[in-house]
Amino acid sequence: MTDVRPSGRGAHTLPRTQQAAVLHAPGDVRLEERPVPEPGPREALVRVAAVGVCGSDVHYYEHGRIADFVVEAPLVLGHESSGVVVAVGSEVTRVRPGDRVAMEPGVPCGQCAQCRAGRYNLCPDVRFFATPPIDGTFAEYVVLHEAFTHPVPDTLSDEAAALIEPLSVAVWANRKARVEPGMSVLVSGAGPIGLLCLQVARARGAARVVATDVSEHRLAVARRLGAETVNVREREPSSVIADADVLLECSGSAEAIATGIRCVAPAGAVVLVGMGEPTPPLPVGAIQQNELWVTGTFRYAHAYPAAIALAASGTIELDGLVTARYGLADAEAALLASRRDPTALKVIVRPDGRTME
Amino acid sequence: MTDVRPSGRGAHTLPRTQQAAVLHAPGDVRLEERPVPEPGPREALVRVAAVGVCGSDVHYYEHGRIADFVVEAPLVLGHESSGVVVAVGSEVTRVRPGDRVAMEPGVPCGQCAQCRAGRYNLCPDVRFFATPPIDGTFAEYVVLHEAFTHPVPDTLSDEAAALIEPLSVAVWANRKARVEPGMSVLVSGAGPIGLLCLQVARARGAARVVATDVSEHRLAVARRLGAETVNVREREPSSVIADADVLLECSGSAEAIATGIRCVAPAGAVVLVGMGEPTPPLPVGAIQQNELWVTGTFRYAHAYPAAIALAASGTIELDGLVTARYGLADAEAALLASRRDPTALKVIVRPDGRTME
Amino acid sequence: MTDVRPSGRGAHTLPRTQQAAVLHAPGDVRLEERPVPEPGPREALVRVAAVGVCGSDVHYYEHGRIADFVVEAPLVLGHESSGVVVAVGSEVTRVRPGDRVAMEPGVPCGQCAQCRAGRYNLCPDVRFFATPPIDGTFAEYVVLHEAFTHPVPDTLSDEAAALIEPLSVAVWANRKARVEPGMSVLVSGAGPIGLLCLQVARARGAARVVATDVSEHRLAVARRLGAETVNVREREPSSVIADADVLLECSGSAEAIATGIRCVAPAGAVVLVGMGEPTPPLPVGAIQQNELWVTGTFRYAHAYPAAIALAASGTIELDGLVTARYGLADAEAALLASRRDPTALKVIVRPDGRTME
Amino acid sequence: MTDVRPSGRGAHTLPRTQQAAVLHAPGDVRLEERPVPEPGPREALVRVAAVGVCGSDVHYYEHGRIADFVVEAPLVLGHESSGVVVAVGSEVTRVRPGDRVAMEPGVPCGQCAQCRAGRYNLCPDVRFFATPPIDGTFAEYVVLHEAFTHPVPDTLSDEAAALIEPLSVAVWANRKARVEPGMSVLVSGAGPIGLLCLQVARARGAARVVATDVSEHRLAVARRLGAETVNVREREPSSVIADADVLLECSGSAEAIATGIRCVAPAGAVVLVGMGEPTPPLPVGAIQQNELWVTGTFRYAHAYPAAIALAASGTIELDGLVTARYGLADAEAALLASRRDPTALKVIVRPDGRTME
Repeated sequence: MTDVRPSGRGAHTLPRTQQAAVLHAPGDVRLEERPVPEPGPREALVRVAAVGVCGSDVHYYEHGRIADFVVEAPLVLGHESSGVVVAVGSEVTRVRPGDRVAMEPGVPCGQCAQCRAGRYNLCPDVRFFATPPIDGTFAEYVVLHEAFTHPVPDTLSDEAAALIEPLSVAVWANRKARVEPGMSVLVSGAGPIGLLCLQVARARGAARVVATDVSEHRLAVARRLGAETVNVREREPSSVIADADVLLECSGSAEAIATGIRCVAPAGAVVLVGMGEPTPPLPVGAIQQNELWVTGTFRYAHAYPAAIALAASGTIELDGLVTARYGLADAEAALLASRRDPTALKVIVRPDGRTME
Repeated sequence: MTDVRPSGRGAHTLPRTQQAAVLHAPGDVRLEERPVPEPGPREALVRVAAVGVCGSDVHYYEHGRIADFVVEAPLVLGHESSGVVVAVGSEVTRVRPGDRVAMEPGVPCGQCAQCRAGRYNLCPDVRFFATPPIDGTFAEYVVLHEAFTHPVPDTLSDEAAALIEPLSVAVWANRKARVEPGMSVLVSGAGPIGLLCLQVARARGAARVVATDVSEHRLAVARRLGAETVNVREREPSSVIADADVLLECSGSAEAIATGIRCVAPAGAVVLVGMGEPTPPLPVGAIQQNELWVTGTFRYAHAYPAAIALAASGTIELDGLVTARYGLADAEAALLASRRDPTALKVIVRPDGRTME
Repeated sequence: MTDVRPSGRGAHTLPRTQQAAVLHAPGDVRLEERPVPEPGPREALVRVAAVGVCGSDVHYYEHGRIADFVVEAPLVLGHESSGVVVAVGSEVTRVRPGDRVAMEPGVPCGQCAQCRAGRYNLCPDVRFFATPPIDGTFAEYVVLHEAFTHPVPDTLSDEAAALIEPLSVAVWANRKARVEPGMSVLVSGAGPIGLLCLQVARARGAARVVATDVSEHRLAVARRLGAETVNVREREPSSVIADADVLLECSGSAEAIATGIRCVAPAGAVVLVGMGEPTPPLPVGAIQQNELWVTGTFRYAHAYPAAIALAASGTIELDGLVTARYGLADAEAALLASRRDPTALKVIVRPDGRTME
Repeated sequence: MTDVRPSGRGAHTLPRTQQAAVLHAPGDVRLEERPVPEPGPREALVRVAAVGVCGSDVHYYEHGRIADFVVEAPLVLGHESSGVVVAVGSEVTRVRPGDRVAMEPGVPCGQCAQCRAGRYNLCPDVRFFATPPIDGTFAEYVVLHEAFTHPVPDTLSDEAAALIEPLSVAVWANRKARVEPGMSVLVSGAGPIGLLCLQVARARGAARVVATDVSEHRLAVARRLGAETVNVREREPSSVIADADVLLECSGSAEAIATGIRCVAPAGAVVLVGMGEPTPPLPVGAIQQNELWVTGTFRYAHAYPAAIALAASGTIELDGLVTARYGLADAEAALLASRRDPTALKVIVRPDGRTME
């Protein structure tokens, strides 16, 4: 552990150590003192402002793993983050101290076949915040390669800037589906990702967006954001939308996948965004007879700039999705709240302590 | 000339004859009495409400031809039209008397290679209103195949419903260009088509739209509709937008094409919408070095439903583009006004006489 | 039942009645006398030369239905067919008596949304040979719309011309997958469709084609046609091809689908051609993590001309797939042989009686 | 200038200096002694076997520049090259000493927007052999990043391996055009690039390929390679092919571009490969009326593996295009021959001295 101050332009006034919320084992998060990291030549040091709690954070907290990703050493969670650049490495040109930024959490290798093909989200050597063994952003300071440090306009709040990350998931899903003006879009699952997907579909000009869920609370939010809604406990989605051009599946539920696919019109697109069972039964007969295109999304690529532009234009509501805020010392409470409160949408951790916004 | 009443469901109260504005020679438009046509089995008879004057109408009026299309017999002009269905043929199921409709002006053969491939706008045997020898809609009544008779919601005015036609041109151009959220779009030429193209680009989520023209009046409208503007008499477009993802060229000017192409980023798209010189010089070197994709549009296909949905959602301003209205008896004045008034955007002919709206 | 001779140009020498093999119930095929049909204005009357037996014919013969298609009245089977035009309707221009033709078996309505979009294979009102209630081509004479009657060069045998139908399935599957030079393609299932798919993949320049099956006999044919092979009883396909760009699944086996998908490289394409269980378990996790594109094929559209060109160029071996021939009177034996002989690939029925070719 | 031996695995037996043919001014090429370069950590040192003379080499030799690329310091020409790896840097894993390789001549930065998007051929910071100020391969030894050093099978000769470079141009042009089985392709210009483009079109299954030129000698080669031909001094191409699906324009002639575009069917693709006038007149009217897609190519990306696979499969004839060979000392004679001999197709420089192959 170093005791020197972080260096780089702008670093002279920074502390040597910081606080971070560290996952040691399932159900065991501790606030610890850690050194403030040094930015490399092309990295920025960012003072973290706001971090959204994602389902994957909660899953690591509860189970210590997601599929093949296992927490084997203490891990800082958090990857939906914004902050302010406080120092930069010697070769950085894209940002400078004082810039408010949204942080794209995955830095790919840039050399592999996937990176060369432009699909950097599929890079097998990506270093992604809060995916073992890479620490995340439940911390006061983090470093990030400048190319993934995206300045945001002042019209975006710190929390909206943090939520550019899940918005990028929605931008990517809509891009895969090629949602167009005039289309009908079915969004199954009205959690945060579903609520963002439906907003992006509308921002691309979709004529009709139908959201489904089992929670009346979430469906009410979906209606406020411009969708028609179906509570699948009460009605079949196909009774409302039998010929969707696109299904954006955000629940991960095997039943929602099967039900949703049967609502899609011939030659329509199905994008599986939500994660659930690894091998659910799929209506292959319907996929064949209607020549549907089915794909899944893994994070996103080249999506942050579009997400920031959409959010800055006022087309997308982000701040309205925030339902609770916690300080860094209460990160564990934030993880628990995200799961236990049925009306929770986006729970925010504020390493900068501004929990009263 | 038949003297029987038009038949079909709903036809019992219709007159046998109607008025139409007929082009006999360049500069010679006459109001004439003509029979009200009979709808065929799959046709609707529509009482025409509003017709937008298009540049092609003016060109036929002035020159008697456009390229290989020559006016050799008296021709009714007008093809941007809306109205009310007043009678339908025996097999019609899509509309019924009383429906307010936007009329898609081209009915393709449905049998040729282009039709079978889904590109009905390229059908060599299309019958298109006001393209010789097919009469247009400067008339009280017209018949149209039901498949091209699109019902509109009551939130759309008659004039907005007529302008679904040029809006479809803009929908098609944007679809060809695959305008996406986050993109920068340059629209050269801020006449009616350019003003619609920029609105559709915004409705698809474009982050930045820059419109160019030589008319301050038109640029002011473009600014009101959300675009940045460049008066090309004063500045180079490249000084404002040097890396457009898309150029939608709506002026037809050879200079605008060449200037615009040089503003497009590598791998960008160029859609040539405006018609001008048939073989202008093109910066092929730039197209090669930047691997641009260049295409042109010929009318549109499958665009009316999306255009109606966009207009109905309130995303697109149509009524605000109307700058003058004339009755059918003044169709010639409308054609002249469209050309002579430098502040004219959309001039409307109202065969239903409602010129005071 | 008419007793007049068929009319149309060329019809003067034709008989009034013909023989047809008619399915009355599962396991009950009868040779019957039926009238020779009249060609409509845009139809050709074709004397059938050769008909390939398809798995769907066998399925109707055994079960009397396929999914929702139920044989409720006597049905003539057979839809992979060639023949000679012997008479044409009054408006026919594309073929004339004496032309040797491959017969595309499905005639779409030309009016619906799918037809207008260019996807005529998804037309809900298509009339398809040997799909209830439309009779097929196990008959001496059939009529067919001229647009689906494709002339073939003399270098193609009658049987090769019949097999343009399954070759079109393979052309369509490869087109969906966008197989390109340099790609690696996995073909699971080396029956007739798989053997054609692998040949088309090679004709598109695929660098490597690997075929899998459980039958050594079929795998030997696949090797002769240029594929590497894997007997899935002995080895995992992934031990031979772990990063296929494309999977063309031709077996319909749920296990083959799941195994095959795991062999596909990130961003690869999966085309489900073979029909099997309607809702097998699918490795959605792999589809998501690798952002695979999965689709299915339903017949084909716009594929016959390409299939004929490929076959005529000598790139594709068709005649070599024929393993047995039967006369029309032995159609039932042909259906049985296709199922019972483990070395059978393509069994042919020859309504023209030329079973010694 | 260093006097130490090159290091890296395999370097112990290498000389310290080598010969290179250096362009000092238009018309002034000198054989000079230069140090054998050191491979960097991820570079291979390659002993050059064969180098094809490209039109761009000749253009630099004659004019000292191409567009904005100006030869301001002595420059080694040559970029179509093959050789044998003789030493590798410490981190190289893809090749090892003894490997025969085709050398992809452009190494992109890997960091810019174009590289991240997968379009590395558009990287503004690419370092490309024989493009000022980067030296090329008219030399005994060169270093190259391992990722662009592609092993070739022994079935490919050294000269064929060198010609993988122009073959990659053809692979890329055909990929842009999406040439498919059954398509008709017009190739204008039957020089080396045109002859390779037509072969790749056939390898993708094109049903019909028509090549045009003014040289009977070149057209005879085109016919041998499977194309129909048109001598444009004698006939209009449109008299032979009026509805091409694709135009691959390889001549750079303004007249050929205009003539060729008029032969393309509606919705067809035009790929401008040949370089000529920077702003020739283009038939924009035809592009619009037929909604053609026009693009240009700049080198290629991700094309070497496909080109090597096609060549290795025997589908493409490369050796047969070689019309003359020169030693390194005669590089200037090779440049002159390439221009002056009307029957020259590919002239090869052999730095390894094997001019008798």
